Amino acid sequence: MKPVKVGLLGLGTVGCGTINVLTRNGDEIARRAGRGIEVVAASARDIQRPRDCRLEGIRLTTDPFDVVNDPEVGIVVELIGGTSPARELALAAIAQGKHVVTANKALIALHGNEIFAEAQKRGVMVAFEAAVAGGIPIIKAIREGLAGNRILWLAGIINGTGNFILTEMRDKGREFDDVLAEAQRLGYAEADPTFDVEGIDAAHKLTILASIAFGIPLQFDKVYTEGITRVTREDVAYAAELGYRIKHLGVARQTDQGIELRVHPTLIPHRRLIANVDGVMNAVLVKGDAVGPTLYYGAGAGADPTASAVVADLVDVVRALTSDPENRVPHLAFQADALSDTPVLPMEDVQTAFYLRLRVQDKPGVLADITRIFGDERISLEAVLQREPDEQASEASVILLTHKVREGNMNRAIEAIRQLDTVIAPVVRIRMETLK
Amino acid sequence: MKPVKVGLLGLGTVGCGTINVLTRNGDEIARRAGRGIEVVAASARDIQRPRDCRLEGIRLTTDPFDVVNDPEVGIVVELIGGTSPARELALAAIAQGKHVVTANKALIALHGNEIFAEAQKRGVMVAFEAAVAGGIPIIKAIREGLAGNRILWLAGIINGTGNFILTEMRDKGREFDDVLAEAQRLGYAEADPTFDVEGIDAAHKLTILASIAFGIPLQFDKVYTEGITRVTREDVAYAAELGYRIKHLGVARQTDQGIELRVHPTLIPHRRLIANVDGVMNAVLVKGDAVGPTLYYGAGAGADPTASAVVADLVDVVRALTSDPENRVPHLAFQADALSDTPVLPMEDVQTAFYLRLRVQDKPGVLADITRIFGDERISLEAVLQREPDEQASEASVILLTHKVREGNMNRAIEAIRQLDTVIAPVVRIRMETLK
Repeated sequence: MKPVKVGLLGLGTVGCGTINVLTRNGDEIARRAGRGIEVVAASARDIQRPRDCRLEGIRLTTDPFDVVNDPEVGIVVELIGGTSPARELALAAIAQGKHVVTANKALIALHGNEIFAEAQKRGVMVAFEAAVAGGIPIIKAIREGLAGNRILWLAGIINGTGNFILTEMRDKGREFDDVLAEAQRLGYAEADPTFDVEGIDAAHKLTILASIAFGIPLQFDKVYTEGITRVTREDVAYAAELGYRIKHLGVARQTDQGIELRVHPTLIPHRRLIANVDGVMNAVLVKGDAVGPTLYYGAGAGADPTASAVVADLVDVVRALTSDPENRVPHLAFQADALSDTPVLPMEDVQTAFYLRLRVQDKPGVLADITRIFGDERISLEAVLQREPDEQASEASVILLTHKVREGNMNRAIEAIRQLDTVIAPVVRIRMETLK
Repeated sequence: MKPVKVGLLGLGTVGCGTINVLTRNGDEIARRAGRGIEVVAASARDIQRPRDCRLEGIRLTTDPFDVVNDPEVGIVVELIGGTSPARELALAAIAQGKHVVTANKALIALHGNEIFAEAQKRGVMVAFEAAVAGGIPIIKAIREGLAGNRILWLAGIINGTGNFILTEMRDKGREFDDVLAEAQRLGYAEADPTFDVEGIDAAHKLTILASIAFGIPLQFDKVYTEGITRVTREDVAYAAELGYRIKHLGVARQTDQGIELRVHPTLIPHRRLIANVDGVMNAVLVKGDAVGPTLYYGAGAGADPTASAVVADLVDVVRALTSDPENRVPHLAFQADALSDTPVLPMEDVQTAFYLRLRVQDKPGVLADITRIFGDERISLEAVLQREPDEQASEASVILLTHKVREGNMNRAIEAIRQLDTVIAPVVRIRMETLK
């Protein structure tokens, strides 16, 4: 069969990685797909800049719309990132009946509903494996590999930068700011690290994972998002002492009241496999009613790992070129007319256990005041760790682990504790998950 | 669309599990696949026996060929296990142009080449996700999710019984025989545990994984297979002291000289994620040239997890019913006419590091004799751990960790050591892998 002709938007790290993988493994890819995959056109802001990939035989342009409009191009690979003009380019490709492969999580999380609706109308595919957890085939695993399951919940370490920072804090007892600066030097973190450390990037990915797991429309604006900037060395050490690790998790869970969608630092028992996912690596734990817990681990970013996912999508699209659109894997795992309207649960109503750290005056009755407040909010304690007061100081740290409690009740309890004269600093709270 | 009609061979644990999952999650499965999947016929040796699944509306027979020949059945699900009559049934189904889904690793490992060739001729699909690692979608991950990669190697904990035994031995300091007896009581191990503890089951699965990873024909007879029956509590404890865990791994690796195919107990560094896969759980680590290391974890057996894989295969087959056979995912990941004839490397030529435990007389010169033999075979040592001799005893244990060495050289060295008067018991040797 004749090779399939592909157009590439963006020749950055992932764009060049994709060209490299398609070239280097061209023979193996063709032996798998039954035909070659060839990049015939590509766009970049600066086409003269020296790059780590061979561009011979590829028509280059500074205008990505040229690639979309190129009559020879049947599949458009969008790797420029951001939502505009990525959205316009994807829609333009679809309007011309072209298939789209993208690594763009913001695009899918924010505009996926619109893009998939248009693709559905035109009978074309939009593939986005590379948008979540880099090279890990997690979209495929959930959408196809677990198709027989009712997915109960999933929890993922889906931002490598954040996981690198938390791992270094634990392994070396370092502070957040210190490690962040190093991550920036190493190129793991952007100059503006907001997207990574504030959880926005993870929230984009969680939005996508939740939709394909539960068959709900993409609802990025409903994700509760809390970053890791306030996690301290002290909390990491206390967590370790209690047998836990702190990870920045994206959690989606189906409950009777609605779907939980949340990104936040989380204490998890250190013996859980996902607690041992370190450095820049990603992992997603998915629990299905039939399969039980499953975990998928690998590199969440980088040129080659992301290209691995882009090329896998290309092979999938190539295989399905001649199939009936209604027999293809639906974009959000469930048929477009069979999506669920299960609401997203307000964060107030989410129930989790909590780790709390309080700085209190070291005098009688302090703990009694706190436990009275907990009693009022029906919060029960699992463990209390009281530190001997510092020498010559009149203050002490108290660590409390609670059983599961409604977030709204915990908010009220913390507000009440804040009013106590004996409590000195703001209450530190980190949610806990057993992931069972 | 009308529901797809399926025939089931075998109503044991997995057969009933499959009926239960299809019933319980029927709505979700149809919302994904776009149509229902309905079991219309099933066979079992004893159709009267009470079972934990609802059989109403299913035509029951004691002759599995009745199901294969049932004109209403379009897809045959083979869950009887063993190679005969499973092979004959699969071939009969294929000859009638019916698709086959199977959970039978022995069938695929031993007769897959023949079965796939017949399926290829008739343009039908044979799906076998459930044959390896139960509910983990590992076949899909390697065959489709990593389609852009040259797979460098894979290593898997692919027998839950063996992993349960090794985990208990480590956690509780118990001996092999003791844990095996418990596993049999718990139903984790068969009355005849040979297939599990001698590595035959793992070798079946490794055969399949290696074929789809490297695009080679199935070659079960070429797998080097060593069980865990000789792993002792003592070795588990020494390994732990040195920072390692002993796991029963199936390893397949592409080298310049050929493909390694081997199942044996293996020391792995305790910080590797796969070293922390405990109990009956399975995990497969796959390293691709683009994606780097990836890991897939989940339940490797059991009614529901296996049914999860069977149903995922059914959904895949249903989606591809109307597609061109040449555009479907090839059985062994690579197009049938593009398989590789790379030879399997004889075990003699495989290179690994080794853990060795020697029982020696406690007198001068013993270690010198041993290291001289190693020198002759160009074996270099990474670490030596000599235990103080037991009180009142004249014997000592010596633990040696070697660098990588050709298996043939190690065999000769061990034979020479055996000749030494000062070495008392047979040399214990366990291979080591860094899995980097």
